[in-house]
Amino acid sequence: MERPLILVSNDDGIHAKGVHELIDRLITFGDVVAVCPDSPRSGQSMALTVDGPLRVSRVDDYHGARMYTTNGTPVDCVKLAVHTIVERMPDLMVSGINHGSNASINVNYSGTMGAALEGSTYGIPSVGISLTDHSHNADFTPCHPFVDAITAGVLRHGLPEGTCLNVNIPVWHSPLSEMRLVRAAKGNWKDEYREYTDPAGRKFFWLSGNFVNEEPENEDTDEWCLAHGIVSVVAESIYRTAPDTRGLQWISQNLTQISI
Amino acid sequence: MERPLILVSNDDGIHAKGVHELIDRLITFGDVVAVCPDSPRSGQSMALTVDGPLRVSRVDDYHGARMYTTNGTPVDCVKLAVHTIVERMPDLMVSGINHGSNASINVNYSGTMGAALEGSTYGIPSVGISLTDHSHNADFTPCHPFVDAITAGVLRHGLPEGTCLNVNIPVWHSPLSEMRLVRAAKGNWKDEYREYTDPAGRKFFWLSGNFVNEEPENEDTDEWCLAHGIVSVVAESIYRTAPDTRGLQWISQNLTQISI
Repeated sequence: MERPLILVSNDDGIHAKGVHELIDRLITFGDVVAVCPDSPRSGQSMALTVDGPLRVSRVDDYHGARMYTTNGTPVDCVKLAVHTIVERMPDLMVSGINHGSNASINVNYSGTMGAALEGSTYGIPSVGISLTDHSHNADFTPCHPFVDAITAGVLRHGLPEGTCLNVNIPVWHSPLSEMRLVRAAKGNWKDEYREYTDPAGRKFFWLSGNFVNEEPENEDTDEWCLAHGIVSVVAESIYRTAPDTRGLQWISQNLTQISI
Repeated sequence: MERPLILVSNDDGIHAKGVHELIDRLITFGDVVAVCPDSPRSGQSMALTVDGPLRVSRVDDYHGARMYTTNGTPVDCVKLAVHTIVERMPDLMVSGINHGSNASINVNYSGTMGAALEGSTYGIPSVGISLTDHSHNADFTPCHPFVDAITAGVLRHGLPEGTCLNVNIPVWHSPLSEMRLVRAAKGNWKDEYREYTDPAGRKFFWLSGNFVNEEPENEDTDEWCLAHGIVSVVAESIYRTAPDTRGLQWISQNLTQISI
C-alpha cells in the first residue's frame, strides 16, 4: 500500500526546533515533505504575497523528509507546495509544532494556523499543533503521544470539509494524560504597545500586552483545558459566515426602501 | 448630542481613491479618524507586526477627517488607532472601500476584512466595504447609497458581538437597487502561479490564478448576488470554532485509551 503523503509547514521557519520534532514523529506515518518559511513569520495569519516574486529552494533532507524553504508566508508555503512541489495532493497537512500557544482568538493571527487553514482550503485534512512555550529550545517531548494520536486519528477518520484542527499542548508540571475537543475561549489582548523614542527623537511602538481570557470558568474552552493540564483541540472552520444573524434583517432591502 | 466617532482603515493604503470616497460619505455621519497603511497591503489578512517597530504619522486632514499612516498592516492600524490615537472607543469602524472583491473565501486573505475583524475584536461595530473593480481610479459612485445605508443602519442597530459585515458591491451595467444578507459562497483559486526565470537563471513564482465559485447556482451566496447585480452583505464572525463537530468524537480521549 502506498504510504501517506504528509505536508508539513510552520511559521517559526525552517530552522525552528518545533518543525524538526514534528517531522521525527510524522516520518513513521508516511512520506514527509516540509515547506517552511526561510525565517520566522509569526503573526502572519493567512497573509499571502500578492505583489512580489516567490522563491522555492530545496535544502538538505532531514531524517528522510524532503525539505524546502520559501521567502513567503506560511500560506504561501502551502500554496507553493501544492502547485510546484508535491506530485499529488497530500493525505495530511500538519503545521508546527509552534513555539507558543495559538488558542482562543490567536487562531486569527497565527501563521501556524494560517497554514493549516490553507491546507483545509485545498481539501487536505489539516492540523496545527502548538506548545505553550515560546523558548527556542522548548522541550517538545510532552507533545509526542498527542502528535501521534492526532496523526493516526486524522489519517484514519479524515476531517469534515472546510475544518482543520487547532491543537494546543500545555507546559505542565506532571505528565499530560488527556485531550479534549472544545471551543475557542473568548478573549483578547490588553495594553498592547510599549512606547519608545529613537535616537533621532521620534516615537515608535512595539507590540506587547497580555492575553486575557474573558471566560476562565467555562470548562468547554481551550483556555480552560490549557489552564488545567489538558490538551485542547478546537475544530476551526475556513468559513467565517456567522451562524446567527438575528438583528440583521434591516440589511436586506431595496434602495427605494433605504432611508437614513 | 455628541457626534459618532468613526474609525476608518483600509489595505490599499493612505493614497488609495477608495478610502477618500469612503471618508466623503462618512463625514456626514460623524467625526472621522482614518488610520491607514503607508503603502498597499493587499492580502495581509489579519497579519500583525510582532517583532519590529511601528510608527504612526499624522498627515494632512482630508475634508474634515483626521488622517494618520502607519508602517504596519491593516490590523496594526486598528490596534494602533485604539491604543495610541483615539480618545475613546469608536462607535463604528469602516474599512475600505477596497479596490476589488472580498467575497467568498477572500475574506480570509483580505487586509480590508482583517481590519474589520480586528475592529470587531475590540467590540467596535465594524464593516468592510469592497467594490469589484481593481483599477486605481475605479468609479465608486455606485457605492454611495449603500455606504450611507450600511453606516446609518449599523449606527442605529449595532452589530452582534463578534460579528462584522463584509459588504461587496458589484460593478454593473445599470444602477444597483438592492442589497441582501447572504452567506459566503464556497470557492477557491485555481492555477495559482506563473513561473519566471530571473537574469541569473533562477526560477521564481508570482501569484496569479482565477477564482472559481463552487456553487454558482445557490442564490443565498455573496457570489450569486455579485453575478446578478445585487450588493452582498455577509455577517462574518471573529470566531472560527466549527459549529458541527460530527465525526470528531475520537479526539476526546485519555492517553491510556490512545492506540495507533
